[in-house]
Amino acid sequence: MRLIYSLLGILLFNSGFSQNRAGKPAENYVLVIHGGAGTILKSQMSPEKEKAYRDALTLALQQGYAVLQSGGKAIDAVTAAILVMEDNPLFNAGKGAVFTSEGKNEMDAAVMDGSGLQAGSVAGVTVIRNPILAARAVMEKSNHVMMAGKGAEKFAADQGLQIVDPSYFYTEERWKGLQRVRQEDSMKTELDHGGKKTTQAFLFENKDSKFGTVGAVALDKSGNLAAGTSTGGMTNKKYGRIGDAPIIGAGTYANNKTCAISCTGWGEYFIRLVVAKTISDMMQYGKFSLADAANELVMKQVPALGGDGGLIAVDRNGRYAMPFNTEGMYRGVVHADGKIEVLIYK
Amino acid sequence: MRLIYSLLGILLFNSGFSQNRAGKPAENYVLVIHGGAGTILKSQMSPEKEKAYRDALTLALQQGYAVLQSGGKAIDAVTAAILVMEDNPLFNAGKGAVFTSEGKNEMDAAVMDGSGLQAGSVAGVTVIRNPILAARAVMEKSNHVMMAGKGAEKFAADQGLQIVDPSYFYTEERWKGLQRVRQEDSMKTELDHGGKKTTQAFLFENKDSKFGTVGAVALDKSGNLAAGTSTGGMTNKKYGRIGDAPIIGAGTYANNKTCAISCTGWGEYFIRLVVAKTISDMMQYGKFSLADAANELVMKQVPALGGDGGLIAVDRNGRYAMPFNTEGMYRGVVHADGKIEVLIYK
Repeated sequence: MRLIYSLLGILLFNSGFSQNRAGKPAENYVLVIHGGAGTILKSQMSPEKEKAYRDALTLALQQGYAVLQSGGKAIDAVTAAILVMEDNPLFNAGKGAVFTSEGKNEMDAAVMDGSGLQAGSVAGVTVIRNPILAARAVMEKSNHVMMAGKGAEKFAADQGLQIVDPSYFYTEERWKGLQRVRQEDSMKTELDHGGKKTTQAFLFENKDSKFGTVGAVALDKSGNLAAGTSTGGMTNKKYGRIGDAPIIGAGTYANNKTCAISCTGWGEYFIRLVVAKTISDMMQYGKFSLADAANELVMKQVPALGGDGGLIAVDRNGRYAMPFNTEGMYRGVVHADGKIEVLIYK
Repeated sequence: MRLIYSLLGILLFNSGFSQNRAGKPAENYVLVIHGGAGTILKSQMSPEKEKAYRDALTLALQQGYAVLQSGGKAIDAVTAAILVMEDNPLFNAGKGAVFTSEGKNEMDAAVMDGSGLQAGSVAGVTVIRNPILAARAVMEKSNHVMMAGKGAEKFAADQGLQIVDPSYFYTEERWKGLQRVRQEDSMKTELDHGGKKTTQAFLFENKDSKFGTVGAVALDKSGNLAAGTSTGGMTNKKYGRIGDAPIIGAGTYANNKTCAISCTGWGEYFIRLVVAKTISDMMQYGKFSLADAANELVMKQVPALGGDGGLIAVDRNGRYAMPFNTEGMYRGVVHADGKIEVLIYK
């Protein structure tokens, strides 16, 4: 599968790619990625761990850039970048997904191609090695947009995607994370029942170990926008909870007329505000710039309801934004000239 | 449960309801409902069946109106109206839900309260008698917005909602519908494999027996907007497909600043266009009227992609719209003066 994606750029280049209105490939193409937002403090990060994150983000950008640079599609660049992060246990997506309260890994993913508003997503899947490929298959090989659970897994298997034993997703760090959050959650319950308020700091720490997402957005040489998001969801989640990542319009959206968006953070707030589509609508109907619309959501509307997180966004002119209202967000951008920037803290 | 809702209006009235800015309860309150859109032709409807639909829609409006008239909340009126339709086998929601390809009934539902942008939804539930009550419980009793499958069912049971044997949802008409659609789908597959195009009319007929939804939107005396949607999904659906009904922003949305929306139709197109939130955004950021925004989506954007359906909408001033681009849509409205209108055809 990795080979296929490595070859995709070359194939697309050889088959000739479509051109923008001026008849010439645009040179403002760009890829932006994130690996989750939260209380990421330099004081709590070892140099080794920071290097591992930077290396992983750089590799994801390089894989996606190879697609764009050779004239490939935005949707392929987004997929290539997300595959790198899904396969790296540092991120809460694919290998490295967090555990549910039942000790399982239940993953969600979505993609959207802004060129024709095609979209696909999967929710609550447990045996698909790369959920982002399942979301793409839903988009490209079915009449549906969203599939969940066993049904989505059957579809992915029917499409020949790699099915793995659930143990593939086990990582010691995430398993320890589940035990820690279980303990914190039960402490919180005890405190609540005792009539005492839990401290804000305590809740935040707990929440940060619960959330995490990866995502990518891209503008290609032909002027097409695409977005993708993949996540292991919340540590210790119950009741088949679905977050914003697989919900088209909430955590993921792309429209060639406006922008491509991938969100990360406290999913419930991003669903209630339909964050990604709202940014697109503010640009289309309210004449907002991408930066102003993205800031309005991340810095005002989400915090006003009590939520937090961040997002990455790129518009049809190649302008991009990476706002977040947490301490940090793993993020990076690669420009048309190949220059790579990777950032973690504020 | 029905008794509780019948009593709700009285209780809310006695406890005193909040008032609008002028300090006086608004008298422009209104409830609008739908029971699904499709190729509903008078020529194919018996007088008895038409009367049964009109009676059911009237009862749903009466139940919701009782809540509004006595000063109850929009969200309670929406719930009361949807409960009537979920319990009536005429509609594809609750009792009367269509069958999946595996011969099961898998239901989705969502509610949203525009007063605080609270929302709740369930997807792919099979044993909850009234999915709309499960969506409300997610909104009111959990920290989540969306739950799916067995997890959602466990949550509903934990909350004391009525759990039924899946056979409760069996109706002979829907079972026959599954056999008919199975046959049509296999014929379609044969035709496709034979390289022949299926006719548009054939596809439409098949599609109509596949879709159906119920929904309600309301403005209460205090100026609060709410929306709810419930569905049995698509006949013969596979792979855990999730439609637009349970997706906040797509099939269901409410915001006191703008409007409340519930959609019905070919869900995939409503998801890709994030129809409900787009209408809200066009009003908020583009200064569209409710009617203009709703028409733009139903008469232009949805058909432009190849989809069809309709929606009901009410804005904060009590103006409402019920556009659809199909032959018919079961729908009705009750005004503050208690006047009830029920419509089926164009």
